[in-house]
Amino acid sequence: MRICRFQHEKAIRYGLIHDDTVDILDAAPFQSIQVSGKTLPLSDLKLLAPVSPPNILAIGRNYLAHVNETSSARPERPLLFIKATTALTNPEAPIVLPAQAPDAVDYEAELAVVIGRNAHCVSEKDALDYVLGYTCANDVSARDCQLKLDGQWARGKSFDSFCPLGPWIETDLSPDNLTISTRLNGQVMQQSTTANMMFDCRYLISYLSHAMTLLPGTIILTGTPDGVGMARNPPVYLKHGDVVEVSIEGIGTLRNPVVKQQ
Amino acid sequence: MRICRFQHEKAIRYGLIHDDTVDILDAAPFQSIQVSGKTLPLSDLKLLAPVSPPNILAIGRNYLAHVNETSSARPERPLLFIKATTALTNPEAPIVLPAQAPDAVDYEAELAVVIGRNAHCVSEKDALDYVLGYTCANDVSARDCQLKLDGQWARGKSFDSFCPLGPWIETDLSPDNLTISTRLNGQVMQQSTTANMMFDCRYLISYLSHAMTLLPGTIILTGTPDGVGMARNPPVYLKHGDVVEVSIEGIGTLRNPVVKQQ
Repeated sequence: MRICRFQHEKAIRYGLIHDDTVDILDAAPFQSIQVSGKTLPLSDLKLLAPVSPPNILAIGRNYLAHVNETSSARPERPLLFIKATTALTNPEAPIVLPAQAPDAVDYEAELAVVIGRNAHCVSEKDALDYVLGYTCANDVSARDCQLKLDGQWARGKSFDSFCPLGPWIETDLSPDNLTISTRLNGQVMQQSTTANMMFDCRYLISYLSHAMTLLPGTIILTGTPDGVGMARNPPVYLKHGDVVEVSIEGIGTLRNPVVKQQ
Repeated sequence: MRICRFQHEKAIRYGLIHDDTVDILDAAPFQSIQVSGKTLPLSDLKLLAPVSPPNILAIGRNYLAHVNETSSARPERPLLFIKATTALTNPEAPIVLPAQAPDAVDYEAELAVVIGRNAHCVSEKDALDYVLGYTCANDVSARDCQLKLDGQWARGKSFDSFCPLGPWIETDLSPDNLTISTRLNGQVMQQSTTANMMFDCRYLISYLSHAMTLLPGTIILTGTPDGVGMARNPPVYLKHGDVVEVSIEGIGTLRNPVVKQQ
């Protein structure tokens, strides 16, 4: 199934996408998935990020080629950081270069896991039973804040608009070997497969669930492959007028323009 | 006013405390504060953390004596980290020593700011207009994860139960010079005043609001003074059976027992 989220008649609703139509759901798709009987044309809808997460958990340095391109240490365990939930951004909505840190804003294509039900101390074997589905994310990062000014990654990863998510949640998908790419103004910048993750989705869900309860709607960003802008010579940072597209096999493409803060 | 939050007849409600009674509010206290006309005895209520935050923002190294006791660098700007919202814990509820990291769990008394309305790019001068009130927090921290294993502080600060908050929100309070202390099993471990913050509440709110929108209910933990367990010789870490109390002048005392994970 493909689950989307949108505003309709002043309410935020979830829907199931079938080709060019959307069956409106009665409620959020966590307890059960029940269609309301109402259908809308997909082309009439402005899609929202497909979930409103209680937490956005994210994993750093999970692809070896990205560890190497940034001369980082290979982590011995998943490296957790947290993005503020206010960073969430809709498909097609602008990534805003913040006035506080406009000069070193970078893209990161990531497979996002959407948790479907409470997960606390679950095993690797059972981990995928707690997943509703998968979507595309862009873990936008102000490299100056993240790496030079703060050391802690929270601010550089949490500016408003720094977590584009979508366009929808694909529920019937194995996360183990999906091509993942970023295009910047049409040019391929990142191109890899989720098979290159050092800690796979089962491991990440189990590991994180032993630290904290993963509530329904929790997002786990699973790390980015090589090809980020800061690792290029010269570095390539996002600028006003750019368009960034994150594509993942079996899901689709998350597209966002870039604008400077007014 | 003193605003509390509690469960009553299967619903979560807010209330105003007057001595030993509580006036139940019609709704969350962000848009307006309206009493329902129903009153309950305070002693009948089991208080919850006084708000359910969309984000728990936290500032590291904001008291010079704590910077010095931990041999850390004095920060040039507020050092933001984020705690998972699932770490929120009620007054009197146990701090659980997590099986994943039970051996170096530390207390940190902090003044918590509770944001009352959307704050985006606000000035220092206006910052306190966006505050609903203040409460006590314990920024519980697994030092091994925070400092040795991860480097990023998110996991060590985000285990379930690692953010006790309460017992209520005090709205009529100047945050600038309040005594703040921690007692562990009755013994004073931290004793300072919020006047010792290097970046005060106005500065923190303004600074953070220029990075991200602070939604109603957002919590800002404003840093801890000296006296933490890891800086003692030998270190003092929390153990099963301990009781930790965080007290702030003009607010009250947040008390939590410590237990090991079952």
